[in-house]
Amino acid sequence: MELRRNVLIINPVEADPFAVTEAQWQAAWARAGKPPVTAGFATPGPDLAAALATADTIITGPPILADILALPMPRLESVFLLAAGVDRLAGLAWPRGVRLLNNRGVHGAKLREYMLWALLALHMRAPVLAMAQVARRWEPVFTPAIAGRRLTVVGTGDLGGASASAGKALGMNVTGISRQGRPHTACDRVLPSAALDAVLPETDALVLACPLTPATRGLLDARRLALLPAGAHVLNVGRGALLDQAALVAALASGHLGGAVLDVTDPEPPSPDDKLWSAPNLIVTPHISADDPTIYNDASLDLFFATVDQANPPNLVDLGLGY
Amino acid sequence: MELRRNVLIINPVEADPFAVTEAQWQAAWARAGKPPVTAGFATPGPDLAAALATADTIITGPPILADILALPMPRLESVFLLAAGVDRLAGLAWPRGVRLLNNRGVHGAKLREYMLWALLALHMRAPVLAMAQVARRWEPVFTPAIAGRRLTVVGTGDLGGASASAGKALGMNVTGISRQGRPHTACDRVLPSAALDAVLPETDALVLACPLTPATRGLLDARRLALLPAGAHVLNVGRGALLDQAALVAALASGHLGGAVLDVTDPEPPSPDDKLWSAPNLIVTPHISADDPTIYNDASLDLFFATVDQANPPNLVDLGLGY
Repeated sequence: MELRRNVLIINPVEADPFAVTEAQWQAAWARAGKPPVTAGFATPGPDLAAALATADTIITGPPILADILALPMPRLESVFLLAAGVDRLAGLAWPRGVRLLNNRGVHGAKLREYMLWALLALHMRAPVLAMAQVARRWEPVFTPAIAGRRLTVVGTGDLGGASASAGKALGMNVTGISRQGRPHTACDRVLPSAALDAVLPETDALVLACPLTPATRGLLDARRLALLPAGAHVLNVGRGALLDQAALVAALASGHLGGAVLDVTDPEPPSPDDKLWSAPNLIVTPHISADDPTIYNDASLDLFFATVDQANPPNLVDLGLGY
Repeated sequence: MELRRNVLIINPVEADPFAVTEAQWQAAWARAGKPPVTAGFATPGPDLAAALATADTIITGPPILADILALPMPRLESVFLLAAGVDRLAGLAWPRGVRLLNNRGVHGAKLREYMLWALLALHMRAPVLAMAQVARRWEPVFTPAIAGRRLTVVGTGDLGGASASAGKALGMNVTGISRQGRPHTACDRVLPSAALDAVLPETDALVLACPLTPATRGLLDARRLALLPAGAHVLNVGRGALLDQAALVAALASGHLGGAVLDVTDPEPPSPDDKLWSAPNLIVTPHISADDPTIYNDASLDLFFATVDQANPPNLVDLGLGY
């Protein structure tokens, strides 16, 4: 199929390390070896409406897309999202007939490294070691190897698969949880969502790596946290609203949980007086787990060229399912 | 060869998570399937001299061994050290004809996990992220993947090999440095010690994992730190005196180094007013990188039984070389 498109790339107004540059676009175009494509660049503002009137394809991120969805875009056929999660679009009217592609697959390599670090940091009790250093105290904390521990990963997409892969590389026993329970190469087993409650008591580390949808909002609530064994670890790299943050803080404060790592929170950022900042054995990182700035746009644009004209691309979002 | 020995296990007086228990000894004995061995247990104190008078084999750690070396041990044939490093024995008169075995090989699995964590923590700028959390600030720090970075490991023994293996698992390019430069399976190349200065400018992360000997004391001094490229990382899991700590702190303070992880210091612990505790981007852990308390004594005792009667065991210490 010939690619003849009027592509509009919309970057944020403010400086952003993930803004797509003209050079990145040209380089990806050259790599793709596709016929010429006219790309326009725009930012939100008074001039955007005119550009939207002629664009048939938009490349942008969720915040901008959410803001422009109500504007007239009479020729729009496709949106390529510079993100994987589409929860920000929930409840908004989607333009009829327009298909939405995301950049799933771009986050796995970096997330896998983050997850290796995060699983080991909790297992080694890095927050306890760090507090001892701040207090100038030499207090050895000896821990066994993480190999053989039980990792449960909710979600087996790009992030979940990379999390499972990190666990396998550490010699952990990995259980995946997905809607349908289809096998995944990095998981020792994958169970359907309905099995989650039964698996929690046999979980040493629980990773949330699924999309935020009506079905997953508040998934890890106080009841499910209580099902985890004493000393278990919780890690969230999906979306903040997947878990009940107040219940998490309570489970850390009581000592029921041995530790937690949150790379996503609700809201982002947490307010300065949020208890998350200082909960015991809780590591908060600012939504950086899966974004490698040196390859992010290149990989996203390669995926764009590879999939924009496919009839049924793997990165086609089902807005009904929410991913 | 028949094993008929009078073994004396000397534990510290104070409670110690690594004291060898009678149950551990009996279980290792059973696993070894060896002929009966009489084992005695002792602690330093007035009664120790009598036990030393009849023991032909001693199992203990470096601090106790250093203290008793000058006592009469007329029947002593072998010492099995519950440690790998023998630097604590340097300069002490060693009893003629007594051979020294250490527990090299027991530390690798745990050290590999620590090194995965430490390499990633520095690469992700975990100290910067932690300070932002303490200050309740959401300040994203985006970093590329660690895969492809250049790791140099000084020492290719148990700790160095495990460090190299961690680097390979992360996709790093791994250069080993050893006395003779013999190849190692986890290293892309191994170079002899004389090549160190030439390799430092091409090193993103430098791991010190060699024994402390007269040849390696102060190995990483101010001159060699300056040979590392700007932003490089330093990790020490060998012995504190392998590096010039004041020079390290200065290189961190100036920003020449991007970060460091020290699991060993000189002295241990550092004094409360030591600048190590608060140097920027420096993570200090209390000598816990390679000790898994759940397997340490079992693995050590298995090694004891496997090697105590070997003519030329792999864990025979050459006190001239210092390892």
